[in-house]
Amino acid sequence: MEKGTLLYEGKAKKIYETNDENIVWVEYKDSATAFNGEKRASITGKGHLNNEITSLLFSKIKELGIDSHFIKKVSDTEQLVKKVEIIPLETVVRNISAGSFSKRLGVEEGAPLVRPIVEFYLKDDQLGDPLLTEDHIEVLTLASKEEVAILKEKALKVNNVLSELFKELGIRLVDFKLEFGKDQEGQILLADEISPDTCRLWDIETNEKLDKDVFRRELGNLTDAYENILARLGGQSVCTK
Amino acid sequence: MEKGTLLYEGKAKKIYETNDENIVWVEYKDSATAFNGEKRASITGKGHLNNEITSLLFSKIKELGIDSHFIKKVSDTEQLVKKVEIIPLETVVRNISAGSFSKRLGVEEGAPLVRPIVEFYLKDDQLGDPLLTEDHIEVLTLASKEEVAILKEKALKVNNVLSELFKELGIRLVDFKLEFGKDQEGQILLADEISPDTCRLWDIETNEKLDKDVFRRELGNLTDAYENILARLGGQSVCTK
Repeated sequence: MEKGTLLYEGKAKKIYETNDENIVWVEYKDSATAFNGEKRASITGKGHLNNEITSLLFSKIKELGIDSHFIKKVSDTEQLVKKVEIIPLETVVRNISAGSFSKRLGVEEGAPLVRPIVEFYLKDDQLGDPLLTEDHIEVLTLASKEEVAILKEKALKVNNVLSELFKELGIRLVDFKLEFGKDQEGQILLADEISPDTCRLWDIETNEKLDKDVFRRELGNLTDAYENILARLGGQSVCTK
Repeated sequence: MEKGTLLYEGKAKKIYETNDENIVWVEYKDSATAFNGEKRASITGKGHLNNEITSLLFSKIKELGIDSHFIKKVSDTEQLVKKVEIIPLETVVRNISAGSFSKRLGVEEGAPLVRPIVEFYLKDDQLGDPLLTEDHIEVLTLASKEEVAILKEKALKVNNVLSELFKELGIRLVDFKLEFGKDQEGQILLADEISPDTCRLWDIETNEKLDKDVFRRELGNLTDAYENILARLGGQSVCTK
């Protein structure tokens, strides 16, 4: 497999063509961003950590019946994934009130929700990723009613599997963001990444935050938190010290 | 009927007890507010205009099969309404993209939607009336799934009736906000007001704005716009000049 032309550069990743038109080459960057890119930093080892964690998580959930675009890790900071056309929605699952949910709706951070909920946000940095209702998604033709139902079902299934997986590691899965894409056959496939950049992960005993909130809220060293998650997942330290 | 103790003072209205526990006395104020109360003014005649317009509209839609809390107008600025417990949701119906919908979602103002949509906002000034999904409404126990279905059905019925009514007067009903309450028997009843404060009304020919956007965006004289609506509804001028 050869790394080809750069197709896209996002806040946390670069995507390159390969010599197989159905496969792209993903490179995780060392950049941390928050608040829609308003807060930025370069953090050595972060790309390596997220590549390791995402690769481990996609592999683990595949064993538990959840397919994704992930093919394999090819270097410390790189992986190969199936090429998909990303649906321009951020699919968020929440188990516990935190972050924008708490702030917007006046619900105390840490309050458990009576059941997991799925939210959709428009993937549009310029508009600040606004919250969408299902009517918005339909009238803006971002996805059909049937596709929204599939996204919700898949997101809740990922939530079940990931919540259980993290619980066994002493971690509470508070909330997380997924992205989905359509493959060449038009099938909806889980894509993007699953990492402490896209999940809120709290230690079950201490409620210590082991995710990007460490960076957003300046609670300590981001790579220590990510190393902690990697270690609990059974990964090898990337030696960011 | 006697006007009793003040029960509640909002941005645009005061609500008083009466000697009938099932009836309250509403007084429309001369205040105009926008942007969640950030922009304020006192506009002579506005209370009179909104009382006239709301009374006319509630009477007209009643003839067309839509019940509301409205009983009767008792003075230039006052009306009697059935006492209801307000459901803390703002129910918005949109036919054409405008206002916060256009801004949040990057849709050009004036673009017609493929079908009318209903949105719900949390009625909470401190939180800035945030947009809610149906999951939010359920997990925050603001209303049940069944109640949300009733609100949507009623709101779309009001939209059909009002759109037709305004169309005959050469006015496009762009969007509007409703509030609903529960009466003593727990029945959901249309409440609050229907006026140029709560509707976007554009002249069909010229697209001239005949609603609170005149105040929000400083497009001219608010009372001229409201007098125009009142006149088209067949009401008598309140002589704000």
